[in-house]
Amino acid sequence: MDRAYSVIQHAMSQLEDEFQHILIRNTVPLGAERLYGSIRQRSLSFPVNNAKIIVGEDDMSVVVSGFSSGCIRSKRWSQTFELHHELNCLVQGHKSVIMGEEVVLFGTRGSPYTCRIEIALKLKGVQYKYIDEDLANKSPSLLKYNPVHKKVPVLVHNGKPVLESLVILEYIDETWQGHPILPEDPYERATARFWAKFIDEKCFPAIFKSCWGEEKEREKAVEEVSLVLKILEDELKEKKLFGGENVGLVDIVAVVVGFSLGVYEEAARVELLNKEKLPRLCNWIDDFLSDSFIKESLPPRDKLIAYLRNRFKSGNASK
Amino acid sequence: MDRAYSVIQHAMSQLEDEFQHILIRNTVPLGAERLYGSIRQRSLSFPVNNAKIIVGEDDMSVVVSGFSSGCIRSKRWSQTFELHHELNCLVQGHKSVIMGEEVVLFGTRGSPYTCRIEIALKLKGVQYKYIDEDLANKSPSLLKYNPVHKKVPVLVHNGKPVLESLVILEYIDETWQGHPILPEDPYERATARFWAKFIDEKCFPAIFKSCWGEEKEREKAVEEVSLVLKILEDELKEKKLFGGENVGLVDIVAVVVGFSLGVYEEAARVELLNKEKLPRLCNWIDDFLSDSFIKESLPPRDKLIAYLRNRFKSGNASK
Repeated sequence: MDRAYSVIQHAMSQLEDEFQHILIRNTVPLGAERLYGSIRQRSLSFPVNNAKIIVGEDDMSVVVSGFSSGCIRSKRWSQTFELHHELNCLVQGHKSVIMGEEVVLFGTRGSPYTCRIEIALKLKGVQYKYIDEDLANKSPSLLKYNPVHKKVPVLVHNGKPVLESLVILEYIDETWQGHPILPEDPYERATARFWAKFIDEKCFPAIFKSCWGEEKEREKAVEEVSLVLKILEDELKEKKLFGGENVGLVDIVAVVVGFSLGVYEEAARVELLNKEKLPRLCNWIDDFLSDSFIKESLPPRDKLIAYLRNRFKSGNASK
Repeated sequence: MDRAYSVIQHAMSQLEDEFQHILIRNTVPLGAERLYGSIRQRSLSFPVNNAKIIVGEDDMSVVVSGFSSGCIRSKRWSQTFELHHELNCLVQGHKSVIMGEEVVLFGTRGSPYTCRIEIALKLKGVQYKYIDEDLANKSPSLLKYNPVHKKVPVLVHNGKPVLESLVILEYIDETWQGHPILPEDPYERATARFWAKFIDEKCFPAIFKSCWGEEKEREKAVEEVSLVLKILEDELKEKKLFGGENVGLVDIVAVVVGFSLGVYEEAARVELLNKEKLPRLCNWIDDFLSDSFIKESLPPRDKLIAYLRNRFKSGNASK
């Protein structure tokens, strides 16, 4: 708590003059403990000690007492990431309100593609409205926003639709500051995009088929799953997460492995993961599932298993 | 010619002091006409009048007489794009040599995916070595660089492989200055990525199947092609190119429509394009095929038709 306060004090003194185009300025009195408390609760009342909430007009930068969200994610302050992240979520949320931003996600609970977008929005601290679509009876809004594919997820930002989960993730990363989803280096970005595509094109179809595919193709699909998961295992190398120390694009995309895979195994009564053969991937799944931002983006496991068992009663999926 | 010279003179006087970390400085005397001539020939001898070739160490910026490649693509100078582009190609090529950059493309002539990378590298003015792969007998290098998919294209930049054509295009755009491939605005970027994905996932498979698929699926594929091409037609709206005035990501990816489609139609003796139903798309194909950078990246049409007829003799493709 003290450390958090001193970081803010230090940042205040250093960054006070950094922002010139000031849109809105709020000043409310408060002590450091209450500041931190309100951050943890994501309260928007901003009872901040000797401080201002400043939203820059020029580059959407946000300053809490001269403390910019850009600096929040800079290496200088990485040792106090937790506080910074919470602070950033808070100011992003506040900013959304101030700037009149409207973020709406059309999704379906249980869809790993929807989960991806929820994880990314939560990591960035973006406030959004969630609209659950009944895929058997799609809403006129969904059909209007995605006339080509008529699918979820659709992210509507200030009235403009963004489609396809991988495209939405890049859009979120390029639009909001805070937790970076893609690395900065072009080669590392290309590597992350490659693995995201690999997971979408190779892993998920094989996992799905091995559980819900036609009977004659299931055996082959199970072999395919063990092959592609081994490739993913090797890519993890000695890293904790695919993104290194922090959740990145590949981790978010791999929700189909980190979450859906286990749910499908249980629902379809198929075994696909072997801890002895894939120890790193299994450790990654544990880490993935224990991340608080990911945990709160996942649908209830038992309900999803019941839903899947009911939907695919005959044992295989109607495509 | 005079206009080109005055633009350079003007840029010289304005930008002389812009770059501070100077790595290499060459000065050679010459007149304006010879300067422009040498640019057209992509000569590396740089006989430049009263001028310097400066390669910045800090940000890889390049200045020809105080004329940075960053400014070459700025809006200020867009009216003299042709000269700027050639100039940029020249300095990029020179830079590659100076910085010891090594760019190698493993591809196959006739593959639209390989074409995409050649178009992008040429647009950026990046010098590269092309290695043609025999897909029936893949080289050990290809298998080393792409052990997961064992496919072309592979771009190897200073020994590091980048895989998958869409990923490579983004890498090229993020790595080299010059002609921008993706727009700057995040929403426009998302839109371009959406259409690139649409072309890869919907258009190309349908085009391929309608020409080389199994007989029973061809009729359905022809219907699918007319549906997806109509969607693309509508996306063009009143634009000359998908990228607006200049070739962008969607235009490059759509080489499968702009070039392969016509080749496949002729080789398989199938009609897929109807000028009356798709007038804008047909105009786009004309503009696409008349662009000089695209023209020089395409494989010889007649040879490709002969190859395809030979390969798919039986009338459909063995996958």
